[in-house]
Amino acid sequence: MEDLILPDKKVSQAKDSKTIQVFAPATVANVVCGFDVLGFAVNEPGDEVVMRVTDKPGITISKITGDNGRLPLDPAKNTVSVSVRHYLESVGQPHLGLDIELHKKMPIGSGLGSSSASTVAGLFAIKTLLGDDNDVAKLLPFAMKGEEMACGHGHADNVAPALMGGFVLIRSYEPLDVVRLPHPAGLYCAIVFPDVDVPTREARQIIRNKINMKDAVTQWGNVAGLVSGLFMNDIDLIGRSMKDVLVEPVRSMLIPGFYQMRDMAMELGAVSFGISGSGPSVFAFTRDEQTAHNITKKLQAFLTGIKINSNSYVSTINDKGPRVL
Amino acid sequence: MEDLILPDKKVSQAKDSKTIQVFAPATVANVVCGFDVLGFAVNEPGDEVVMRVTDKPGITISKITGDNGRLPLDPAKNTVSVSVRHYLESVGQPHLGLDIELHKKMPIGSGLGSSSASTVAGLFAIKTLLGDDNDVAKLLPFAMKGEEMACGHGHADNVAPALMGGFVLIRSYEPLDVVRLPHPAGLYCAIVFPDVDVPTREARQIIRNKINMKDAVTQWGNVAGLVSGLFMNDIDLIGRSMKDVLVEPVRSMLIPGFYQMRDMAMELGAVSFGISGSGPSVFAFTRDEQTAHNITKKLQAFLTGIKINSNSYVSTINDKGPRVL
Repeated sequence: MEDLILPDKKVSQAKDSKTIQVFAPATVANVVCGFDVLGFAVNEPGDEVVMRVTDKPGITISKITGDNGRLPLDPAKNTVSVSVRHYLESVGQPHLGLDIELHKKMPIGSGLGSSSASTVAGLFAIKTLLGDDNDVAKLLPFAMKGEEMACGHGHADNVAPALMGGFVLIRSYEPLDVVRLPHPAGLYCAIVFPDVDVPTREARQIIRNKINMKDAVTQWGNVAGLVSGLFMNDIDLIGRSMKDVLVEPVRSMLIPGFYQMRDMAMELGAVSFGISGSGPSVFAFTRDEQTAHNITKKLQAFLTGIKINSNSYVSTINDKGPRVL
Repeated sequence: MEDLILPDKKVSQAKDSKTIQVFAPATVANVVCGFDVLGFAVNEPGDEVVMRVTDKPGITISKITGDNGRLPLDPAKNTVSVSVRHYLESVGQPHLGLDIELHKKMPIGSGLGSSSASTVAGLFAIKTLLGDDNDVAKLLPFAMKGEEMACGHGHADNVAPALMGGFVLIRSYEPLDVVRLPHPAGLYCAIVFPDVDVPTREARQIIRNKINMKDAVTQWGNVAGLVSGLFMNDIDLIGRSMKDVLVEPVRSMLIPGFYQMRDMAMELGAVSFGISGSGPSVFAFTRDEQTAHNITKKLQAFLTGIKINSNSYVSTINDKGPRVL
């Protein structure tokens, strides 16, 4: 990562433009077979950050909404301010005065990349305020610093698609190598978040460290099939490939009724069904919007029946990533 | 696999056309990161089968050349006749009289899919003799029967590209799901076979059964990167992705000077370098024919220096598969 040394006039511009409001999208990481290497962005839900240049050096967080008091206002502990601070240091403006409002518009701990959406919104806000013309992908290492703090693991399968939009492959972490993948235009995503507690840290810890080579071969055959299906616009191949013999069998135990929900979704015509990130959200790909709505309706009714609250979202894949509101 | 019931007139045609001579290509399986799921065919070397319809029921093998007496003339023990017999049973002609000559034009036990090339040549010969218009991919299960006998494991990463040509993904074995992948047109393959003994069966047995999840994630990131690079015509991405943290570290121990040869190839401008199948052959991708020749020349000189005989081949990727001569 090269340092981005920006001219002083850019910072003056930033002070003039005062306030910016940015949306960044939720993301589905892993995409069933692609544990830690695949992810895509959706149009909703997502988070919003309002950022204002101030005269007082340093970052403050003046307001967080939608988090039920769960997120820290302390800028040394919040993923948004921490990643923005790393960015400011890299561009030689460590003391720039900034005030941040964070508006959570999506559930925390949902497996939908909640911390990534906030972090990416913050980074895109400061990038835009400073008039930094570099590719958004250059923000990735800073976003990963935020993830490291939020999840105890600097993974990129949520932040990369939140930042770049679309379907993203993280081929390698050292060195970081990110590839944007195409996808069929008509693919819809139905997401249901069952409101049960599955902390990301714990969801990672239950995954086995040692696995069978045979299962790994099955998994990378499916990863290769999914990537091929995305390039070939072959929704059947995408569906056949979205099978996870390694992580889903373990993580699904933390999601009440997971296999029943999968059966319901597949019976209603889903292309595929699985856990979003580390859960508990689940998602299905469908060939049309109506099927996606039928699935969220059926799954939410099921969850209500077993006394679990839920949220749902229907969306195409978001190819744009963060945007100024 | 549906049974292929062919009309009797086809068999009459076969008897009239008497003799056919077929070439089938050598193949590079695994392609470094894609253990057991990826393979591609080359233009040379390859094997030839001459097949003749006879009046005497059953299959005979009248001649095998180029094998130094290592392959069985007994039709119950030869992979070519065994797979052809399975095919004949499936088309309801188990007693058809056939005589087979097998001309080995490539080294046995080289890691270049020697048995696959012979088997595919035999199957393509009988398919053509019988006027069977089905897709060649329908022959795959029969070819895998031959592989099962030759290697103790019915894998498809040699037979599928030998049969279908080009670059092939075996997404799944149960059910069998094979996907043909594109590749950059200008990619050359330099192959060197060091004449040391690495039996496929043993080369499989030294691979660990239990692996680390972390290494598996690295591997499927690379598999996804390689597949993406093939679709995107991105030779740099193909090169970056062709790394194997699981199988090569073990199998390379059976190949004298493997890492020295890799350094030589990379210094001469190879895109990538690795073991072909279970070895001992090694291969490099290059962007042009001259670089491929420079590599084979340098590696063969190195092998001569350590008193190992070798063969070499330079070829583009073979998109046609077997052909009638």
